[in-house]
Amino acid sequence: MAEFQAALAACAETVEKTMDMLLPRPDDAEARLFEAMRYSALAGGKRLRPFLVMQSSELFGVDRRCAARVAAAIEFVHTYSLIHDDLPAMDDADFRRGAPSAHKKFDEATAILAGDALQALAFEVLAAPETHTDPAVRIELVRELSRAAGGGGMCGGQMIDLLAESGQYDNSIGAITRLQRLKTGEMFAFAAVSGAVLGKASYRVYMALHNYAQEFGLAFQIVDDLLDTEGDSAETGKPTGKDVAAGKATFVSILGPERARAQAKLLVDQAIQALDVFDSRADPLRDAARFVVDRTK
Amino acid sequence: MAEFQAALAACAETVEKTMDMLLPRPDDAEARLFEAMRYSALAGGKRLRPFLVMQSSELFGVDRRCAARVAAAIEFVHTYSLIHDDLPAMDDADFRRGAPSAHKKFDEATAILAGDALQALAFEVLAAPETHTDPAVRIELVRELSRAAGGGGMCGGQMIDLLAESGQYDNSIGAITRLQRLKTGEMFAFAAVSGAVLGKASYRVYMALHNYAQEFGLAFQIVDDLLDTEGDSAETGKPTGKDVAAGKATFVSILGPERARAQAKLLVDQAIQALDVFDSRADPLRDAARFVVDRTK
Repeated sequence: MAEFQAALAACAETVEKTMDMLLPRPDDAEARLFEAMRYSALAGGKRLRPFLVMQSSELFGVDRRCAARVAAAIEFVHTYSLIHDDLPAMDDADFRRGAPSAHKKFDEATAILAGDALQALAFEVLAAPETHTDPAVRIELVRELSRAAGGGGMCGGQMIDLLAESGQYDNSIGAITRLQRLKTGEMFAFAAVSGAVLGKASYRVYMALHNYAQEFGLAFQIVDDLLDTEGDSAETGKPTGKDVAAGKATFVSILGPERARAQAKLLVDQAIQALDVFDSRADPLRDAARFVVDRTK
Repeated sequence: MAEFQAALAACAETVEKTMDMLLPRPDDAEARLFEAMRYSALAGGKRLRPFLVMQSSELFGVDRRCAARVAAAIEFVHTYSLIHDDLPAMDDADFRRGAPSAHKKFDEATAILAGDALQALAFEVLAAPETHTDPAVRIELVRELSRAAGGGGMCGGQMIDLLAESGQYDNSIGAITRLQRLKTGEMFAFAAVSGAVLGKASYRVYMALHNYAQEFGLAFQIVDDLLDTEGDSAETGKPTGKDVAAGKATFVSILGPERARAQAKLLVDQAIQALDVFDSRADPLRDAARFVVDRTK
């Protein structure tokens, strides 16, 4: 696990360097916008999605600079979603990773715009020739990211989550699973398959990575719920017990912590099984799945 | 002018049909998100940007169905920007085109998400093979739209506009011109050149359309400022005198109404001149430029 965490940290460093390079620093009047984009995008985090991109790219011998650009694009979308989710009209979170959230550090209008501009930047990065020499590959990346991030993916999931919070959503396991597949699963799936797209891999291995990420994403979410219930807020860096206080149905509130943990472990086993088409070069992806259930923050 | 307005209305109808087709109507829990997207996107408007797309595409014999998809994508981005601009943290506008703005009709969280999902949808539409058979053309469209919409374009301009409102921006004509070039000019320019991209036209005609749109966009903005000062709110469909009340520097507050109108006319002449490389088939674009200064709403 220590070895995996070192690999994760090394990957985060690579991708953050790329993100830093891709985020302009104008000295014009709009500088405040880019400051806000940089503040949130470069504020740390596990960078799990970028790790999936880099490792799936490794499987197909993709140039690491190309992979790092795709990883940065995904993380820009992830960052924009965090900025918007933290807004007073959404989760109303004053802190993110122990620091003031974007609308607290700047203001609401700047935070909204920074999120909007980060989304545009993600597509600009994917569309540039530096990401891949073949335009057909780049357009496929744009297509998949736009789907994963849009109404049929992340935005749709966040909409359902808001409805769930106000009691306007079915509290069954099936319904919560669908919510999470949209809200976080599609983006995880895009991260995991992006290497296959960059490497023009076969449909069979593309689907293996897709299935891996779907199970992975759900396990990740269940553990998130467990950490919200049982975690140490000093360690997780965010207040715990929020979901319980909001009366929100989660995997843990429906299954109870023990069955939820068992379910997360089962999902991780399935995620690892999905990688059976790959040899030991997929071990970092297998380790990532194990890490997701064992993490304490 | 009556003939031009009929052409504009016919184009709006075509593009709205395409937008309607591209906006899903799920009956799942996330339906509320798509309702909000549809509510704002299909709420009417002059559809000037789509008109520029359709007419510039006509110059190069582009399939009208392809052009209509690009027009819809641009209008989705324009719609998302209006939804976000209307939010309480931004312009705090309760009405848009005489109807409640998105956050009033739904709620702030839904409005933020609807804007986010519309931006993603715009890129999804451009990336689909139905937009053009050549992936290199599609990726060029994505690249140009992402630039026009992002921090170096529309979002950057909106950031400066917010700073200008709170007196943190230079009130010179040069500075206001830069603000408007970013805020609205880049999107107009993308609309006007998109036909040249779809039709794989030469750099020379691409630049002609680009220059046309830059002048066009500024003229459009000056007339917007004039209508805010002198217009009839019953006709424009929005409250007038807002900029004056906000103490905001505009072309009109700096130049005075007479010189501002003269400047708009000069810009329109320059826009029309930029089209000299085209024959009479560009007449609808010339008419559009004339319409922009003569409009009363």
